[in-house]
Amino acid sequence: MLKDRIHQWLQANREDAILFLEKLVRFPSTQGNEASIQQLIASKFKEIGLEVESWELDGNQLKEHPSFFSNREMFEGSPNVVGLLKGTGGGPSIVLNGHVDVVPAGDGTQWENSPYEANIIDGKMYGRGTTDMKGGNLSLYLAIEAIQQLNIKLKGDVILHSVVEEESGGAGTLAAIMKGYTADAAIIPEPTDMKIFPKQQGSKWFRIHVKGRSAHGGTRYHGVSAIEKAGLVVNHILALEKIRNERIDDPLYRSIPIPVPINVGRIEGGDWPSSVADLVKLEGRIGIAPSETIEEVQAELAEWLERLGAIDEWFIDHPVVLEWYGAQWLPGSIDLDHPLMKIVEEKFFDVTGINATVEASPWGTDGGLLTQVGDTPSIVFGPGKSSMAHFPNEYIELDEIFKAAEIIALTVIEWCGLDDRD
Amino acid sequence: MLKDRIHQWLQANREDAILFLEKLVRFPSTQGNEASIQQLIASKFKEIGLEVESWELDGNQLKEHPSFFSNREMFEGSPNVVGLLKGTGGGPSIVLNGHVDVVPAGDGTQWENSPYEANIIDGKMYGRGTTDMKGGNLSLYLAIEAIQQLNIKLKGDVILHSVVEEESGGAGTLAAIMKGYTADAAIIPEPTDMKIFPKQQGSKWFRIHVKGRSAHGGTRYHGVSAIEKAGLVVNHILALEKIRNERIDDPLYRSIPIPVPINVGRIEGGDWPSSVADLVKLEGRIGIAPSETIEEVQAELAEWLERLGAIDEWFIDHPVVLEWYGAQWLPGSIDLDHPLMKIVEEKFFDVTGINATVEASPWGTDGGLLTQVGDTPSIVFGPGKSSMAHFPNEYIELDEIFKAAEIIALTVIEWCGLDDRD
Repeated sequence: MLKDRIHQWLQANREDAILFLEKLVRFPSTQGNEASIQQLIASKFKEIGLEVESWELDGNQLKEHPSFFSNREMFEGSPNVVGLLKGTGGGPSIVLNGHVDVVPAGDGTQWENSPYEANIIDGKMYGRGTTDMKGGNLSLYLAIEAIQQLNIKLKGDVILHSVVEEESGGAGTLAAIMKGYTADAAIIPEPTDMKIFPKQQGSKWFRIHVKGRSAHGGTRYHGVSAIEKAGLVVNHILALEKIRNERIDDPLYRSIPIPVPINVGRIEGGDWPSSVADLVKLEGRIGIAPSETIEEVQAELAEWLERLGAIDEWFIDHPVVLEWYGAQWLPGSIDLDHPLMKIVEEKFFDVTGINATVEASPWGTDGGLLTQVGDTPSIVFGPGKSSMAHFPNEYIELDEIFKAAEIIALTVIEWCGLDDRD
Repeated sequence: MLKDRIHQWLQANREDAILFLEKLVRFPSTQGNEASIQQLIASKFKEIGLEVESWELDGNQLKEHPSFFSNREMFEGSPNVVGLLKGTGGGPSIVLNGHVDVVPAGDGTQWENSPYEANIIDGKMYGRGTTDMKGGNLSLYLAIEAIQQLNIKLKGDVILHSVVEEESGGAGTLAAIMKGYTADAAIIPEPTDMKIFPKQQGSKWFRIHVKGRSAHGGTRYHGVSAIEKAGLVVNHILALEKIRNERIDDPLYRSIPIPVPINVGRIEGGDWPSSVADLVKLEGRIGIAPSETIEEVQAELAEWLERLGAIDEWFIDHPVVLEWYGAQWLPGSIDLDHPLMKIVEEKFFDVTGINATVEASPWGTDGGLLTQVGDTPSIVFGPGKSSMAHFPNEYIELDEIFKAAEIIALTVIEWCGLDDRD
């Protein structure tokens, strides 16, 4: 039986696969530093027997696209890799999409081991990028490698995206779409904790300039602290987050504490300890529900910030300045009764013996671009806890990677169609 | 009469003096960028007929001194200049001390004109450093130049300090003291708005590390925002400031809204807009009352921050880390009935026709070092509003510079003693 053969192949190749994941995690592949890991992945794809294309993103071409968002326009050191497994014809095609970029490791002292050591303890591998999403990527490679090594022939094409820039707006996936690497549907194994996410939250980065008035710190009563005012702005944003989330009644979000969070992730301001700070910059990301457009959300935040004057008169004459910059992720969704949904749910049950949880994703993925720009409806489903993503001591449970690989392999075979002519 | 001759000399040389101040203000002499302005001042001192010594600060020697505080240990580009007017003997000596370093201009958009243009509008010169304290320095140069050009012979020595590093802890004045450039008393024309400050507040810089826990911004409920926690820390510090100031009953502080402020002047934290910030650094300065020691104040802030756990449980297991770094200014005071106090008050009345206001300074000056390390009791008295110091659109009223010059010239003559032998 196909399922057993795949299961056994995965068991037999488990040790090698884990060693390969170690290698992947040991690349500190933050934005701009993805070239070496992509080289390794391109070799892997060739070894599996895929047709491989690798190219550096073309900022000049990308920036003309209305869905291009990034904090940079030059992409040296950030190549995309695509591996193509041509089908024998007559079956639907599928994109399997994973990103190799990782967010920075943050305050190193909060990590018990070095973020790029890939230690394994009690069946978990630790390291930046283990769960987001090198573990999920490994599930994809294993699924396709199993299909190839077991000599399973598919009718439809499988297109493996190994992309950059997911963490900063999706320019990697956009570039793959612009090269024509789209399909009839897609799976993205971001860390969903093995839940199935037919809807993906979008998000957009913002920057808020909060003004104060400088003065000598010793006579700070002559100035106005932009740091104190920034505290008010942060609280005001939290109040908007509350209102926006109370409004959401999609049952897919019912078990998520804050369905569409607003995160203020960076703060910087003032230029001298003994001067009153006259400017503080806040940088963050606002979540966009699958039912919303980015434009609606932008307007709502802008309008909300205009109300700051009611909280503190200072803002009447010194309004904050809202800027949209850097990254955005389009929200995405696939019909709950889309055939691929049915297949993934069924294969999940076949492999695990339990029913999958179907939810909406708490974060943006490249699924929005694939759906809205690439016309490729996408499901996000993968191993690893999203609660560990962007976290110190990020880890992934290794068992889940192999379960996901099995589910994805079976899904791909059923979706693309088995060509069992001899 | 001496007073009239000095007054007339100042009137006659007013235009040239203003042109010289323009030149001074046009040097953006922020920390590390004082070499060119000091060269000009050394020439000026020679022109006036002083013995001049100019030297680059020796970090290796300075850092051995217990009162050395700076955010750097190398002082390239930051020379001190001292001009010595030897007396004929038998009179008390005086240090006239001014710093040439200025704080950064901050957010340029808040300035109506470029911070280093030195525009004059309605009798005020605008620019970074006009009031803090190039205008006050000009008063010193004019006072001594008048004495020299009017061929007035003094018994005691006059030592003109043109120092660096006042804005970051006083290493310039400390270096001058270590070279032996001390005296029986000192005047520092920092911008007191023509008030006389026999007591100077000390201050010390601190840095507070506020911890959070990182997470993906889309599941920010799994993390703890160091930015939100930093807001609590800022408010907690404001509460300590209130307590500390309610305690102060020195009548010299009665008209100062916050006698010893605590200013949080810089904030920085988080490294990704869509990650929860796991670390925020706050940098600030805490004022030290003339009646306090630096050690007492350090202990009080440390103890106060330990109470954060009562405000938010997070801090119990994740206490903030307090670090003392960079600059400190010793508090300073001179007896209210010190002979130099009497002379300055008397000359103030002679020149202005009104009684001087005697207060305590709201900020640290190099007077603390001169008093405590150099055994040189110091009075702070100068033109310009301290409310404009470290401010955009900083300015100084030109008239005040000339009034201060006249008062200082008369004070120096009386203090050092007129040698009227022919």
